[in-house]
Amino acid sequence: MKNSVNRELPEELLKRLSYEAFETTEIGHPSIQRVAPTVHVSTGDDKVVDSIKEVVKNTVKDGMTISFHHHFRNGDFVFNAVMREIIDQGIKDLTLAPSSLTNVMNDMVIEAIKAGTVTNITSSGMRGSLGDFVSHGGLENPVIFRSHGNRARAIEHGDIKIDVAFLGVPNADRLGNANGMEGDAVFGSLGYALMDAQYANTVVLLTDNIKPYPNTPASIRQTQVDYVVKVDKVGDPEKIGSGATRFTKDPKELKIASTVNDVIVNSPYFKDGFSFQTGSGGAALAVTRYLRQAMIDNQIHASFALGGITKPTTDLLNEGLIDRVMDVQDFDKGAAESMHTNGKQQEIDASWYADPDNKGAMVDQLDVVILSALEIDTKFNVNVMSGSDGVIRGAIGGHQDAATAKLTIISAPLVRGRIATVVPDVTTVVTPGESVDVLVTEYGIAINPNRKDLISALSSLPGVPVYSIEELQKMAQDKVGEPKPLEFTDRTVALIEYRDGTLIDTIREVKD
Amino acid sequence: MKNSVNRELPEELLKRLSYEAFETTEIGHPSIQRVAPTVHVSTGDDKVVDSIKEVVKNTVKDGMTISFHHHFRNGDFVFNAVMREIIDQGIKDLTLAPSSLTNVMNDMVIEAIKAGTVTNITSSGMRGSLGDFVSHGGLENPVIFRSHGNRARAIEHGDIKIDVAFLGVPNADRLGNANGMEGDAVFGSLGYALMDAQYANTVVLLTDNIKPYPNTPASIRQTQVDYVVKVDKVGDPEKIGSGATRFTKDPKELKIASTVNDVIVNSPYFKDGFSFQTGSGGAALAVTRYLRQAMIDNQIHASFALGGITKPTTDLLNEGLIDRVMDVQDFDKGAAESMHTNGKQQEIDASWYADPDNKGAMVDQLDVVILSALEIDTKFNVNVMSGSDGVIRGAIGGHQDAATAKLTIISAPLVRGRIATVVPDVTTVVTPGESVDVLVTEYGIAINPNRKDLISALSSLPGVPVYSIEELQKMAQDKVGEPKPLEFTDRTVALIEYRDGTLIDTIREVKD
Repeated sequence: MKNSVNRELPEELLKRLSYEAFETTEIGHPSIQRVAPTVHVSTGDDKVVDSIKEVVKNTVKDGMTISFHHHFRNGDFVFNAVMREIIDQGIKDLTLAPSSLTNVMNDMVIEAIKAGTVTNITSSGMRGSLGDFVSHGGLENPVIFRSHGNRARAIEHGDIKIDVAFLGVPNADRLGNANGMEGDAVFGSLGYALMDAQYANTVVLLTDNIKPYPNTPASIRQTQVDYVVKVDKVGDPEKIGSGATRFTKDPKELKIASTVNDVIVNSPYFKDGFSFQTGSGGAALAVTRYLRQAMIDNQIHASFALGGITKPTTDLLNEGLIDRVMDVQDFDKGAAESMHTNGKQQEIDASWYADPDNKGAMVDQLDVVILSALEIDTKFNVNVMSGSDGVIRGAIGGHQDAATAKLTIISAPLVRGRIATVVPDVTTVVTPGESVDVLVTEYGIAINPNRKDLISALSSLPGVPVYSIEELQKMAQDKVGEPKPLEFTDRTVALIEYRDGTLIDTIREVKD
Repeated sequence: MKNSVNRELPEELLKRLSYEAFETTEIGHPSIQRVAPTVHVSTGDDKVVDSIKEVVKNTVKDGMTISFHHHFRNGDFVFNAVMREIIDQGIKDLTLAPSSLTNVMNDMVIEAIKAGTVTNITSSGMRGSLGDFVSHGGLENPVIFRSHGNRARAIEHGDIKIDVAFLGVPNADRLGNANGMEGDAVFGSLGYALMDAQYANTVVLLTDNIKPYPNTPASIRQTQVDYVVKVDKVGDPEKIGSGATRFTKDPKELKIASTVNDVIVNSPYFKDGFSFQTGSGGAALAVTRYLRQAMIDNQIHASFALGGITKPTTDLLNEGLIDRVMDVQDFDKGAAESMHTNGKQQEIDASWYADPDNKGAMVDQLDVVILSALEIDTKFNVNVMSGSDGVIRGAIGGHQDAATAKLTIISAPLVRGRIATVVPDVTTVVTPGESVDVLVTEYGIAINPNRKDLISALSSLPGVPVYSIEELQKMAQDKVGEPKPLEFTDRTVALIEYRDGTLIDTIREVKD
């Protein structure tokens, strides 16, 4: 059968894994029975454990679901240390359910799959050697990709039932009160990890910094933690920052950023008290800089900024141009440090950020979001997961979630090298065109035809040519030619859930 | 049958209400499956409701369990306003499950019982006309009294399943982000209410102060809230403070406070990094003042102070004599304001404070606690619930919970007027003697014979005569004579749970 974004979904798969096909971005008003963990009662005096070996032996059994967070990004030392022990102890058939997988984890995941230690994975994304390995059929069961909001939803529903969460933190006391703001390897908000701390049956903290009891502020609390493991180092501070926090000098990126700013400023949403999410990356930082100037020039301030936070955003908070920063993760040290000193930078968990089955998430209140794309097609469907060669090399992140904003802008170059970004049909549908409003390229913009209000607001901006999405697709094709169709086998290697848990697309094994 | 504190428990009652008899203060290491609420999904844009009438109509049905918090104490306007509507709408057969009941609620509760609106009550306590009404058989089903920690436990187990929580707050935004620290009717920590916000199926906030969105710091979060009702005034700021924040000048109270201080300072627990809970009331404030001087003189500072917090305690925090204040409720405006400005004053919920079925609660880490008593008997059992006339006039509060401290001191006068405090058998056992270590009276102290270490540490303090508890009881009896035995009917009007949910005592109907 085909779902509402015209993707063929194997009936057998839908049935076997009890999936509904994606229909709509509307969530509606269902009543949801949430789940809760099993608590192993203790006074808390026996939590400190000397070795990872011991805690793995005490907690992990064949067939369990284990989890990690990715707040350390490529500076993470915790994942590999724990997985090394788990593999060495011969544990089998685990489901790996981290908030995401970063490149520094790739070799270990591949080893764990080959050893039979890991037989199922759910993640926000994967890249590099692991994406390649999975795309070529390296894992028997399909990987399930979920957005950050959908992971929160799945945990709160019990679709992901975490047996043991291994959470690295830059500080903790002997009972497990911890935050992400103090220590050598600070990353700021613990947003994604707060879900694991609340819902996992067993919570293991790993830290290189045991603080006097009681340690506050406590983002993770002693009432959630079973074990505290002292390790030498939880992470490499130099590699925790995303790296892409440098302001771009690329004229193409600057042109796109300036056009994004034009679109925002001329939209009906640019008024006092508006809200926005920009994200990281050189172009996003450039947008923030343009937006800052426009806010000053128009005497407009924002009620909140959302999402993965960078220093340019916290600078706006400190300048008084933004009232609140709602912070589910920080992309650089400056943003992490600001959370420690500025009470208006509120740490939020992934559920509050974006769980659609909620009493209102932050993304539901968002006016403007700027998102990226590996591909966008003439139905405005966006792919941030697979490359033009069909290989997995991305992450959903908050893409589907934040696209619920009132004004969703996709910022992307028309082509990258010899590869078109605007295509007739994306390789993998991650975010449905229904929730995308404007595409901004270096050549001009395209507006979703459903948004007549935006068409009239944005159609006569000086220096901002408006095209139909089909015209932009043709322009791209004229530049790089028509690629050879990709060849896949019949085997499904990954499932893309929409944020409500329905199936929006699948990824098949690449044929070599 | 009799339980381990020698209280006769009707077999029929144990069976009908599925109670276990109290055995021991030891909690052990059970595995507990927690419960979770049902969430009614919404984007959050439709939460603001104009009238209490409308929200009651939308949410409360016959037979439900409804809850309130008592952080406004005798300044509460919310309880009566909501209950007025509920009674007027003719709703029947409700279970009332507030964190506690204060005197200002008494008339309305009695009216609700008489109207058949309320047919079951669980509370920390009750006093005045309501205690009298219940003690004389005014409510058909027995009231269940639970400590603050036990209420948290019962909510987390599902023993109390809250359908609708009505929570008054001094500020909230239109989606329900709220705290107790800003506005006209501030009370500081929302500690008890945080349980209701997390576990109730439907959460209604009532506030006189709608703040711009998003309102932070958010102790209660938009993800927990279904409705926000704007009312004229949530409370009377003058009556929120407990009143008893004045330093005592009563020579008897000062003598007791000074002796309590002697006991603490000469115990093995008075060393750098110790922790304590004092509570409110003139004598408790005097203890804090003596303790402050002893800490300065001995160059000792405390790792944390716990429990209901008063300004004298936050003053110690600001002086650097305490590292952290772990704050489940504030008894005066000074303490409430300090939470807003001092990051070392951590708001904690009732579960973190004292739920025994936990991965370590604060009370499990407590060194020294000073508690009060209406009666204490020769087995060191303490009654804080019923008067010497058998009438309900008290509250368990955190009494059973904090009595788990390493050094539990009961501070009480030997007699009050013509009534003995130290008695052969307390009227109602609330806190078992097993968890009580020292009784301090104005005549001297008695040490629990199980605590040989304390007997040797405290037996030769100048000016602190040590008696056996039987000797103190005889001294009291010599002063006031032997009272006539109380007369009760066979009918049970209230149940006293121990903090683990077992039955420690019952209260019977008073015979007039």
